[in-house]
Amino acid sequence: MQVYEAPLRDMRFALHELFADHEFADVAASSELTPDLLDAVLDEAAKLTRDVLLPLNASGDLEGCRFENGAVYTPAGFKEAYRHYCEGGWPSLACDPIWGGQGLPERLNKLIEEMSCATNLSFGLYPGLTLGAINAIEGHASEELKQAYLPKMVSGEWSGTMCLTEAHCGTDLGLLRTRAEPQADGSYRISGAKIFITAGDHDLTENIVHLVLARLNDAPQGVKGISLFLVPKYLPRADGTLGPSNGVAVAGIEHKMGMKASATCQLNFDGSTGWIVGEPNRGLAAMFTMMNSERVSVGVQGLGIGELACQSAAAYAKERLQGRSLAGAKQPELPADPIIVHPDVRRMLMTMRAYTEGCRALGQWTSLALDAEKRAADHEVRRRAADFVALMTPVVKALFTDWGFEAANLCVQVYGGHGYIREHGVEQLVRDSRITQIYEGTNGVQALDLAGRKLGVDNGRLLRPVLAAVSRLCEKTSVSGNGTLERFSGSLRSALAALEVATLSIAEKGAKDPEEVGAAATDYLRLLGLVAVGYTFLKAADIAVTRLAEATGEAAFYEAKIATAAFFFDRILPQANAAQEMIKAGKASMMALPAEAF
Amino acid sequence: MQVYEAPLRDMRFALHELFADHEFADVAASSELTPDLLDAVLDEAAKLTRDVLLPLNASGDLEGCRFENGAVYTPAGFKEAYRHYCEGGWPSLACDPIWGGQGLPERLNKLIEEMSCATNLSFGLYPGLTLGAINAIEGHASEELKQAYLPKMVSGEWSGTMCLTEAHCGTDLGLLRTRAEPQADGSYRISGAKIFITAGDHDLTENIVHLVLARLNDAPQGVKGISLFLVPKYLPRADGTLGPSNGVAVAGIEHKMGMKASATCQLNFDGSTGWIVGEPNRGLAAMFTMMNSERVSVGVQGLGIGELACQSAAAYAKERLQGRSLAGAKQPELPADPIIVHPDVRRMLMTMRAYTEGCRALGQWTSLALDAEKRAADHEVRRRAADFVALMTPVVKALFTDWGFEAANLCVQVYGGHGYIREHGVEQLVRDSRITQIYEGTNGVQALDLAGRKLGVDNGRLLRPVLAAVSRLCEKTSVSGNGTLERFSGSLRSALAALEVATLSIAEKGAKDPEEVGAAATDYLRLLGLVAVGYTFLKAADIAVTRLAEATGEAAFYEAKIATAAFFFDRILPQANAAQEMIKAGKASMMALPAEAF
Repeated sequence: MQVYEAPLRDMRFALHELFADHEFADVAASSELTPDLLDAVLDEAAKLTRDVLLPLNASGDLEGCRFENGAVYTPAGFKEAYRHYCEGGWPSLACDPIWGGQGLPERLNKLIEEMSCATNLSFGLYPGLTLGAINAIEGHASEELKQAYLPKMVSGEWSGTMCLTEAHCGTDLGLLRTRAEPQADGSYRISGAKIFITAGDHDLTENIVHLVLARLNDAPQGVKGISLFLVPKYLPRADGTLGPSNGVAVAGIEHKMGMKASATCQLNFDGSTGWIVGEPNRGLAAMFTMMNSERVSVGVQGLGIGELACQSAAAYAKERLQGRSLAGAKQPELPADPIIVHPDVRRMLMTMRAYTEGCRALGQWTSLALDAEKRAADHEVRRRAADFVALMTPVVKALFTDWGFEAANLCVQVYGGHGYIREHGVEQLVRDSRITQIYEGTNGVQALDLAGRKLGVDNGRLLRPVLAAVSRLCEKTSVSGNGTLERFSGSLRSALAALEVATLSIAEKGAKDPEEVGAAATDYLRLLGLVAVGYTFLKAADIAVTRLAEATGEAAFYEAKIATAAFFFDRILPQANAAQEMIKAGKASMMALPAEAF
Repeated sequence: MQVYEAPLRDMRFALHELFADHEFADVAASSELTPDLLDAVLDEAAKLTRDVLLPLNASGDLEGCRFENGAVYTPAGFKEAYRHYCEGGWPSLACDPIWGGQGLPERLNKLIEEMSCATNLSFGLYPGLTLGAINAIEGHASEELKQAYLPKMVSGEWSGTMCLTEAHCGTDLGLLRTRAEPQADGSYRISGAKIFITAGDHDLTENIVHLVLARLNDAPQGVKGISLFLVPKYLPRADGTLGPSNGVAVAGIEHKMGMKASATCQLNFDGSTGWIVGEPNRGLAAMFTMMNSERVSVGVQGLGIGELACQSAAAYAKERLQGRSLAGAKQPELPADPIIVHPDVRRMLMTMRAYTEGCRALGQWTSLALDAEKRAADHEVRRRAADFVALMTPVVKALFTDWGFEAANLCVQVYGGHGYIREHGVEQLVRDSRITQIYEGTNGVQALDLAGRKLGVDNGRLLRPVLAAVSRLCEKTSVSGNGTLERFSGSLRSALAALEVATLSIAEKGAKDPEEVGAAATDYLRLLGLVAVGYTFLKAADIAVTRLAEATGEAAFYEAKIATAAFFFDRILPQANAAQEMIKAGKASMMALPAEAF
């Protein structure tokens, strides 16, 4: 059974307690955004996602999207759920009030995204892609386009897409072939075939706004010759009503491993009218505005699925009777003990728990930076926040989705054979989450973005503040007088040392040979992720120790926080040293074989 | 695209070269079983699996099994393929000539199993389960039952099943409720409901021989009150022709994540006639004869899928053009380089390659022991072989299937978005291989079998010879004068030290608290697996160095062997130290939270 209640207490901990002393949090002190207001929104979102989205998750997977007579239909219940979602004002939560949004911060929005991704990832993509398109239009389109499109997109009446991929090019967009021909009226005629277009067609909204990467006739080759265009499914009239169809044809939908209620379309643009977004040949930059915020959101998808997996596994482990505790029967009155008594089942549950709490904390840290980047009063704080976002975006995307997929698999493992059949609904989590490691840039591409681009900025300007923060916290907690904190501090310090050695090694070898950076990238991303998550656990434990000493209540919550941190330091963080050893080995054995040997 | 050619050269290396000097290999020196004969059988199997089984793999997944009017039908082509398979004599390959088998050794048979699992895992289960049932009947049934059933099962005319699981019990068979009532004629009437019965019904054979665990009326509670019964679908007449139906009804088939061409049935036995196999109340022991050989076979399934994944990924990586090499364009005449130039793609390909070569070698070592256990002339060798099989069975089952699943996922990752859609056929590998970590005892159960049972036998009698062998090889290669071998030797020696420390720690802590064994088990299995596979890589590299020095040809093959070993020591073996650190942490943080906290 898919079991989910939004983890509100832990969300409130991440939202209000964990980073209360952080410089990025200053911006959060706006008087309107009281903790009570934020909590009330979380409570409402928890109800919506549990009562409206979760019940459609398994049925949507079973039914899937249909492609009939050139149009795509979502599974039963999705239209009503989407209407409900829009009526509640959820699409506009974090959008600018100018366009009808509610202007709530990302640090709240990402928690709500976590809930919707947990309860129905396929559903979550429809508004999710729209939000990405809104960001790109807001950042780069003309005032006229903004006026014409943003209000309807912010309200959820119209949805959005990102049309990048073509059959022969995904990661390497420089190869794309879709063309744009300028027209006398300043518009363009767009022609080409796109694939893998999420929400490319569906029956939830009356219009769909495609953001399409294409080449102008005279454009330079490669990625420097790509422009971005806004191409609506139906051309709106001046009065805002829908005009004629715009030559965007759906050639089909993909049959996928999972995410079956999310329509992944092949779209053909045949002389469709479009308008340029941003400068000619600068489309990739505009698209990356959208992509970066999307990448954090994809990380949050991994977190959401991980939480659903964790709760679904725990519910089953407390209920399923099988075998006896190795320490002697725990419930002798029953024919067997619930399987949660078995250490190996605990190992799986605690792993999932450490993943979700750790990702939630690092996600919140990153969201806080997203807010500060936009809104902090101090220019230096804005720059530091932007640096942090740039550094952590690939980590959040890749680490959270790797762990989300792993958590989904651990959940199936806890269910045993029952997890492998459709009936219990947990194998769906494996199939659904698998795509998150691939789309919006594969996790290998994220790693290269981190190690190849982000590390190199100003000789490590992005990384240094993180290393310093981890080091300061290790120092502080190492003299706390609390044995537990001191032990955690020692583990984190050793992982930090591994990270420092690995960073130096990449910088040195990479300066001579860029393939060395590529060879180290994936392990390096994991290593930085472990240290960053370790930082949040040490910080959480430090706060928990204080709260417990103050005896202000909720002892069970804070004790569990320390226990989960202990598990992380005991059982997950030791991977850091292994990662460093792997990085140290360099590229030699990875690149030794000639291609023909494979 | 699913791409597969049996890796015959590496199979011959594992079969003839790698363990040529091992004491278990003496038994292989039978004059009839010349290397040429074994190679000829491998060649034939390679053709069969590529030409007959592989083409039905994706279509079988798409179509799945059908349940209609109480009977199960396999997908199109399966009946013909099965007939072809039987006509070629493949079911009887490793069976005793008394029953019509060809008596070929396990070390050959397991390589052929690898081929059939690689090309069509769903298909492979039908003869695979039959073989397990043959083993149990051969080992425990009366002469009369053997005469009546074995010849038809060995020829493939009749198939077999294992009916263990019931809805409320899988791992904990002590809870099972199916009953057996003795009849005046010495037979029993079997009644009860079983689930998850692989090949429980299908249209490939005219009869199906179920081996059913059930309780006699007066049986003690728990696992000590379980007996094993042979229950045919149709009762054979004295003349061998099929008699009446035996009250075995198919209640339905499961809708599973994968393995869709394998019929997983719910069976109801309603007063069905059965005959006891082995002693009353000793059914579990008889079943475990079957289970142990099945567990090694399930490991081989993981290996097979891993090989299919590896080849399918390599083919795509050499063909898909995307981006340019970090070292400068490798194929400037093309619009982009093939993605095999990228270090992160290499990392994935080399990981898959190290997994499959490593598992094939350890699988061969284990198969050699299976043969020696049965056939060695010397009693002491037989005992040592049995010890090795007992120790390695859980490692082979769990490690190979974990790595097989990981390889399947790496293959999807190499394909990117194209891997997530059905069209390319590689997401099927993920769905199919996922069950191998669960059935025949979950991988957690394997780990507990290793750490809780096998380690404890005679204070480590099973493990000591393995530690000694690894140590001897490390010593020998450390003074080989070859820098590469000496480096490998140092890495393996450090992993061996980690294994020794972990073994001691489990023995000490476990003596006081059995939960400590449970908490360490999964990491311990991984650690032993890494050391055992590391041993085979060092041995392989040692042989390769000699062959290269002799310059007897095939330099590319032996150089690749050393390169793959180097990747294993650089990039996979470092997990060993991490595993030891995790084990050292003990159970405290794993077991700290009360069940209510989840």
